[in-house]
Amino acid sequence: MIPLTSKSKILKPCSEDELLRLISKELPSPDEDVVTGIGDDCAVIRGFGKSGTLELLKTDALVEGIHFARGTPLPLVGWKALCRPISDIAAMGGSPRHAMITVAAPSTWGVTEWRGLYRGIGKAARAFGVSIVGGETVRSPNPLFLSVSLNGEVRKTHLRLRSGAKPGDFICVTGKLGGSLRSGRHLRFQPRIAEGAWLASERGVTSMMDLSDGLGSDLPKLAKESLCSFRIATDSLPLHKGCSIKEALSDGEDYELLVTIRPQLWPGIQSRWAKASPDVALTPIGMMLPSGALATALPKGYDHLRP
Amino acid sequence: MIPLTSKSKILKPCSEDELLRLISKELPSPDEDVVTGIGDDCAVIRGFGKSGTLELLKTDALVEGIHFARGTPLPLVGWKALCRPISDIAAMGGSPRHAMITVAAPSTWGVTEWRGLYRGIGKAARAFGVSIVGGETVRSPNPLFLSVSLNGEVRKTHLRLRSGAKPGDFICVTGKLGGSLRSGRHLRFQPRIAEGAWLASERGVTSMMDLSDGLGSDLPKLAKESLCSFRIATDSLPLHKGCSIKEALSDGEDYELLVTIRPQLWPGIQSRWAKASPDVALTPIGMMLPSGALATALPKGYDHLRP
Repeated sequence: MIPLTSKSKILKPCSEDELLRLISKELPSPDEDVVTGIGDDCAVIRGFGKSGTLELLKTDALVEGIHFARGTPLPLVGWKALCRPISDIAAMGGSPRHAMITVAAPSTWGVTEWRGLYRGIGKAARAFGVSIVGGETVRSPNPLFLSVSLNGEVRKTHLRLRSGAKPGDFICVTGKLGGSLRSGRHLRFQPRIAEGAWLASERGVTSMMDLSDGLGSDLPKLAKESLCSFRIATDSLPLHKGCSIKEALSDGEDYELLVTIRPQLWPGIQSRWAKASPDVALTPIGMMLPSGALATALPKGYDHLRP
Repeated sequence: MIPLTSKSKILKPCSEDELLRLISKELPSPDEDVVTGIGDDCAVIRGFGKSGTLELLKTDALVEGIHFARGTPLPLVGWKALCRPISDIAAMGGSPRHAMITVAAPSTWGVTEWRGLYRGIGKAARAFGVSIVGGETVRSPNPLFLSVSLNGEVRKTHLRLRSGAKPGDFICVTGKLGGSLRSGRHLRFQPRIAEGAWLASERGVTSMMDLSDGLGSDLPKLAKESLCSFRIATDSLPLHKGCSIKEALSDGEDYELLVTIRPQLWPGIQSRWAKASPDVALTPIGMMLPSGALATALPKGYDHLRP
């Protein structure tokens, strides 16, 4: 990774974080209704929800050759395109509601392709109660590009941010990790909407985040937002069959939930979870530490802007 | 334009309307909160606004080579990218609020390019009171592609749809038409937010739409949604200097408002408008007719999907 400095007039790669700082300087301060803007799984807006709720806003892009291989069946591309931002809504404890879909498609596309793509989008929309309320289609000579924007709602008391973790909290993950790209799971995953809503209704859950870039990249982000360090027991990671610990840390695209839980409330949550979600594990993998404590060194996951 | 039939397995161009019908068949019905989904300037959502308001949702894409030429100064690209969906919010009588920006940028981009683009976006955000609350950046080998999703709010009583026009209503346009691309105006236009809000507060205004594809394309769409026909006096069109009537009808990218007004309330609106908006004309150009009446034949404007 080449650091980007303000002196550089030439064209260098930079990390998403560096780019975000650069961009933010050019933008006005968010208005008073913005509870959380750039930097969490979703933006959170006050006053735009039903009474007692907050609105969640998310946008997410899917690019052929980056997020799916050329030749991937289009219904799976559609499913993934909508389920990715749904997973972000899950990580806030919310319910997805209304989506707009922008598709830049090759100019050679006809009925079969459009129908295939929207069959997958429609399937995901039905599965998670999303209404498609708008969008745009553009012909393009380039690879397929989709951009989905999605809103959702969350009860004020259920909102969980990345910044809520405290030293001593247990770190847990839902499901299993690793091998998502290799196995094709990244095209068929189930966003953890029910699990996220359940966890958000538990007072002991202090923060949540969805695992899209890999635990090795995502946990440090959550820790940074919570002003904490962390320690994980890598041999306690719930692995998908055939996956190594390194793959569980850095493959990415798991779309599981990373959750922190107050230790004194963990026993009750653990036993209620077992009844509420018998088919999905909730596994403790470590503990949040005071900031300054040496964090477990983790291999990094995916950063779209890293060369 | 080659019609697309369901038998066609091969790859043919189709119009936006045809594609929309095809796509809609694959999607679930919108939920009960959706007042208007696909088909107006914005989607309109009930229950997601402050008390007495509705939420407006819009997404809009900008592609190098389609919406702006390669080499266009990036601050102007940023301005246009955000102002286009703001213009759609204006056409609903609303105020823009929160935006998310997705940028697929060439992998060669560095500080200067990102800063330039976001300077334009920031300028538009400040001018129209928009908070940028999220987005995504993707490196791409392809031309620059931006997708902006924007929400806004409108008082329930101020909402104006395309479908509200009645036979006998006067057809009016704000400002002047034609030559937007040639003059570069499409990169510097002022969305008619103040004018849209003013018009929407007038009981006599029955429908509104923003002119992006050209009056020749946009007026038939409004008429179709209102189940009306129309007649316009083409020699009454307010022309930008040096523009022909044909250009005013088909150049597109005017970003003016197309408005229908009850004839008996027109005199009052006309005189109040002159005081409220002394710098922007509101020009009557024709009349809505009962459906079935022969519409004025107009040259078509721009359809992104037409070959």
